[in-house]
Amino acid sequence: MSDNTIGRLFRITTFGESHGPAIGCVIDGCPPGLGIDVAEIQRELSRRATGKSRHTSQRKEQDEVQILSGVFDGCSTGTPIALLIKNTDARSGDYAEIAKKFRPGHADFTYWKKYGIRDHLGGGRSSARETTMRVAAGAIARKYLREMFQIEITGWLAQLGPIRTDQVMDLEAIDQNPFFAPDASVVEQLEEHMDRLRKSGNSCGARVSVMASNVPAGLGEPVYGKLDADLASAMMGINAAKAVEIGAGFRCVDQLGTEHRDEITPTGFLSNHAGGVLGGISSGQDVLVSVAFKPTSSLRIPCRSIDIAGNEVEVVTKGRHDPCVGIRATPIVEAMLALVLMDHVLRQRAQNG
Amino acid sequence: MSDNTIGRLFRITTFGESHGPAIGCVIDGCPPGLGIDVAEIQRELSRRATGKSRHTSQRKEQDEVQILSGVFDGCSTGTPIALLIKNTDARSGDYAEIAKKFRPGHADFTYWKKYGIRDHLGGGRSSARETTMRVAAGAIARKYLREMFQIEITGWLAQLGPIRTDQVMDLEAIDQNPFFAPDASVVEQLEEHMDRLRKSGNSCGARVSVMASNVPAGLGEPVYGKLDADLASAMMGINAAKAVEIGAGFRCVDQLGTEHRDEITPTGFLSNHAGGVLGGISSGQDVLVSVAFKPTSSLRIPCRSIDIAGNEVEVVTKGRHDPCVGIRATPIVEAMLALVLMDHVLRQRAQNG
Amino acid sequence: MSDNTIGRLFRITTFGESHGPAIGCVIDGCPPGLGIDVAEIQRELSRRATGKSRHTSQRKEQDEVQILSGVFDGCSTGTPIALLIKNTDARSGDYAEIAKKFRPGHADFTYWKKYGIRDHLGGGRSSARETTMRVAAGAIARKYLREMFQIEITGWLAQLGPIRTDQVMDLEAIDQNPFFAPDASVVEQLEEHMDRLRKSGNSCGARVSVMASNVPAGLGEPVYGKLDADLASAMMGINAAKAVEIGAGFRCVDQLGTEHRDEITPTGFLSNHAGGVLGGISSGQDVLVSVAFKPTSSLRIPCRSIDIAGNEVEVVTKGRHDPCVGIRATPIVEAMLALVLMDHVLRQRAQNG
Amino acid sequence: MSDNTIGRLFRITTFGESHGPAIGCVIDGCPPGLGIDVAEIQRELSRRATGKSRHTSQRKEQDEVQILSGVFDGCSTGTPIALLIKNTDARSGDYAEIAKKFRPGHADFTYWKKYGIRDHLGGGRSSARETTMRVAAGAIARKYLREMFQIEITGWLAQLGPIRTDQVMDLEAIDQNPFFAPDASVVEQLEEHMDRLRKSGNSCGARVSVMASNVPAGLGEPVYGKLDADLASAMMGINAAKAVEIGAGFRCVDQLGTEHRDEITPTGFLSNHAGGVLGGISSGQDVLVSVAFKPTSSLRIPCRSIDIAGNEVEVVTKGRHDPCVGIRATPIVEAMLALVLMDHVLRQRAQNG
Repeated sequence: MSDNTIGRLFRITTFGESHGPAIGCVIDGCPPGLGIDVAEIQRELSRRATGKSRHTSQRKEQDEVQILSGVFDGCSTGTPIALLIKNTDARSGDYAEIAKKFRPGHADFTYWKKYGIRDHLGGGRSSARETTMRVAAGAIARKYLREMFQIEITGWLAQLGPIRTDQVMDLEAIDQNPFFAPDASVVEQLEEHMDRLRKSGNSCGARVSVMASNVPAGLGEPVYGKLDADLASAMMGINAAKAVEIGAGFRCVDQLGTEHRDEITPTGFLSNHAGGVLGGISSGQDVLVSVAFKPTSSLRIPCRSIDIAGNEVEVVTKGRHDPCVGIRATPIVEAMLALVLMDHVLRQRAQNG
Repeated sequence: MSDNTIGRLFRITTFGESHGPAIGCVIDGCPPGLGIDVAEIQRELSRRATGKSRHTSQRKEQDEVQILSGVFDGCSTGTPIALLIKNTDARSGDYAEIAKKFRPGHADFTYWKKYGIRDHLGGGRSSARETTMRVAAGAIARKYLREMFQIEITGWLAQLGPIRTDQVMDLEAIDQNPFFAPDASVVEQLEEHMDRLRKSGNSCGARVSVMASNVPAGLGEPVYGKLDADLASAMMGINAAKAVEIGAGFRCVDQLGTEHRDEITPTGFLSNHAGGVLGGISSGQDVLVSVAFKPTSSLRIPCRSIDIAGNEVEVVTKGRHDPCVGIRATPIVEAMLALVLMDHVLRQRAQNG
Repeated sequence: MSDNTIGRLFRITTFGESHGPAIGCVIDGCPPGLGIDVAEIQRELSRRATGKSRHTSQRKEQDEVQILSGVFDGCSTGTPIALLIKNTDARSGDYAEIAKKFRPGHADFTYWKKYGIRDHLGGGRSSARETTMRVAAGAIARKYLREMFQIEITGWLAQLGPIRTDQVMDLEAIDQNPFFAPDASVVEQLEEHMDRLRKSGNSCGARVSVMASNVPAGLGEPVYGKLDADLASAMMGINAAKAVEIGAGFRCVDQLGTEHRDEITPTGFLSNHAGGVLGGISSGQDVLVSVAFKPTSSLRIPCRSIDIAGNEVEVVTKGRHDPCVGIRATPIVEAMLALVLMDHVLRQRAQNG
Repeated sequence: MSDNTIGRLFRITTFGESHGPAIGCVIDGCPPGLGIDVAEIQRELSRRATGKSRHTSQRKEQDEVQILSGVFDGCSTGTPIALLIKNTDARSGDYAEIAKKFRPGHADFTYWKKYGIRDHLGGGRSSARETTMRVAAGAIARKYLREMFQIEITGWLAQLGPIRTDQVMDLEAIDQNPFFAPDASVVEQLEEHMDRLRKSGNSCGARVSVMASNVPAGLGEPVYGKLDADLASAMMGINAAKAVEIGAGFRCVDQLGTEHRDEITPTGFLSNHAGGVLGGISSGQDVLVSVAFKPTSSLRIPCRSIDIAGNEVEVVTKGRHDPCVGIRATPIVEAMLALVLMDHVLRQRAQNG
């Protein structure tokens, strides 16, 4: 089993290696009649794209997406929507040196153990390039959610290394800086931090948060298809993710019951520690999710490792990598939230009409 | 869609309300030839059971499990294994008062929004009683994993409210105290804390950790069926869970790349910040997961809420509830880890022979 | 993988061996608010039950069904509905003699090859007793289809051995005779045929047809979830089924295009060779399906076979078996049609609102 | 739900309209290490292609397939294999006249009812062009089955209109004539029949049979994933299929039990009425399947129909269509058998190791 599909009724199947001819996806289950504009998908892709600032990888990915099927006269037809992006800027040479070495912290080692085959070019399917397709499919889900339910999804960088970036929450600021930080006043500090990191050849982790508003109550299944369980899976499935919180998350360990439970009044809830999900089902409050991303392991600072024969080697990575992959994760986190909500909107409709 | 099944190849479907005639499950996909002993399942259930100490709910659940199918001459036959537990100690009277009120922090509200039907007796499917079936099915998965791969799964309480309980890691101690704490020296402190809570009518959260050793490298799918994504889903799907970490989890936000990446030598990894999963696939290191459980919302301390007509009401819960649901979560967390690993062992075998 | 579930959104998982303690099923995905009455389920079960006439097996199966979950105050709640029937009349002694021999035409041989385990008591999961659960779940699906869409499902015996029974179509007659024949005038002939067969110790095949009227147009998926493909799977999956036709079926091989295509007028179609399905999607015409059932292989006429060691043996079956399993297949065929339509009604609603 | 995926562990997802930019598929679950050669896939496609003789559609489909992912150094890597064929010879003009009319016997009507959208160009997803992807994916499955199990799959035309073509079974002859007839002596008769049909503007049905030899015993699940049920679904899901038989098929209705049951000796079965499947599981005998294909409904002989406004219209179809779609169905039937067997080989391995 090789599981390249996400979703139950809104199903995304992705394919493609970072250094093969193309990457793409098939979106199966999009309701008919949704206006679909390739420019809107492209817009989301460009938010994720590299090369926007000196703080992310200097690869120039064009990411020009083509729609191959499922759209007729600008509208979804209800049949599968295939999207394709050709790979153009693949410098395979960068990878030659590490073809037979395992990079610590990378999927090299586990792919080798699983498949017994080494596609050393850019990491095969483990490459973050696969996430372009999540963003592209997410753009379609977002549009449907906005048009049918006025659901709005907003993600932001909450912490970069040691720097908290969500002490001030100015949603307007998020798309005004290359970090997706909601606090314009920390941008300079972030830039300095990144410059230092880049100079030192090191990397740092990040925390990204996301919120969906206007989510109707009733989404999610009570036992194994819980909305929060599906969100946890979707978020933990993003490259480099190591932890996921809903609402208060780990802070709930320290809370008292009287503090955590969100009291209700005729005009609404008095707090949102639950993060919009109770018993696995959306409550109508904002859905709040937070995700931790580990620091990139591909560094030019040497480290100890082994090669495929088990010999001790030193590994130095020379490719063009982001010193903080979490920076570009914001549009991906948003997309995953959109995909999960979209799936649950259709699931809810199936059972409850 | 009402999604009461977990797993792809080792599939558990549960059914039953806490106050109906019975709860049960169907385990589909258990390989033939595994010795199955009802006493072994019962042993796991009794670890989870209430009434073990004054610190958990005083309901006397007998949880006597029956095997209805799939086992012949003490061995699994490869056909579905149905397990059944009759409900005996259901005091429906306890729930009468809250039949038309929503308990803050509970699934009452969201079930009503989803189904338009109020099964107020014990919360219907949202009751933690459903987790007996996870533990029962988990017992079978654990046995298979142990016999075929020598995989050992150990869970423990890592924090209870403000008290860290994992500063000393003595695995022997875990089953010697009613908290599943690995540090015998904190037990007295925990008891005092729980006594205070019970007296005050309040509740607290908890963090539970779990480890699987001897997990073969190669389990997990590279993109959407990642082992860590499936673990996140399984853990977040436990009642009251609000956050999940793999390995370093949220601590990775603060780590540098040189610190987080686990260097490799011919004799093994030098650290395990990854928690045994790289690129969604097991590395052969111990799999490490940590889960946050929120404090119980069912308290005898009154709180503000509304009834099903939207009127303001005061809610006081009188049922017999655990002041810290996290205490009993340890065997459930272990079971979920076993179910996910079992499923991935079969998935791996399907594709890679 | 052991695949005991049918359906995508209306999912039936069955369990239980014919000679174990019980058989049962879990129905997951039933919309909330449907009135569910155990007597209605029992009524469908009694149509399938043995012992109705001297022409079917003389086992006295009581088939008393219990509802274990998912129903509250006489209504489905949207949570899984578990049904259970205890096994009472299992004469295991009947099977002792054939414990180590393979019965030709039976699943003994293939189960042995698949699982390497011999549950010789009544054939384990291959027993037709599993079909009680299809009929029970089908009763719930039928009720929903009738109440929501006025869909009516009617099955009948179309041929028994060499005797055509559908030359006269009197739907009222079907439930007036133990054969489900729509032509009362052939009943005597059928009885004589069955008496001869029983005396000779032999068995015969049968053809069963089924019709659903008032099926809304638009059910079915265009490519792999075609309505007719799902019907073919559901029908071929009934014990002893060997062939399935939709509409004209094999007769279409001989037809000209001008004859087969069903012309359309403003008041409707002029014929129904398509059997109500075009391009995999229901057209609004009656859905017509026909199924062939092979003659029972369990005969007291000896035959050549081998035992589990590969030695030549003679096999004589002494159990109480139906000389024509097709007779009791009519309610099962109806149930399978109901289950497939129910699933597609929910699938259609999910995508198209 | 729009269900464009077939298979559980060897999963094919297809996309593309006949008149859009391209059609393609994603094959998910192919084991790593299988040699994959685009020329082998192309060879299977050319067997299905139109334009081979004057008896099939005169469209010149090039069907040049590209591999976009999942293959590295000529070997499958275990990641999804995406295949793409660009559409080149789409004469949309041919369809202009019928843009608002429903063609009797076509999916026009049911697509309209389902989606409320009319993609009149070549029938959208209902076009037989989608089957190129089944053949392409089937080529990969066949190769695996041959290399790992020596399974050989052979299909043939068994009947064309009134002409039986399988009275003589010469497997060598099949690929020597444009009809896939196993009896060279009937080819002239078939040509005359087709010439007459074409002149008259009419069409005829066909029956196609297929056999798989060396299938290991033990494939298939006992209840809902029966091998024969999955075959029935796969075959009925081919465009224009109306009936499916396994082994004796409908002939079993007339057979006695003593005739139908395949007796066993130490050296093997004495007959194969079962068609290689007992109780849903392969027995090791040849798997035998037969499929009926209806006559094309797209004719230049006028017929009565309605338009999308419900008005009476006359429909004449001018596109380039096959007078007997069954002729080109043989490679598709073979491919579907390969896909189902491949899936079950992996499923069996998952459970039984």
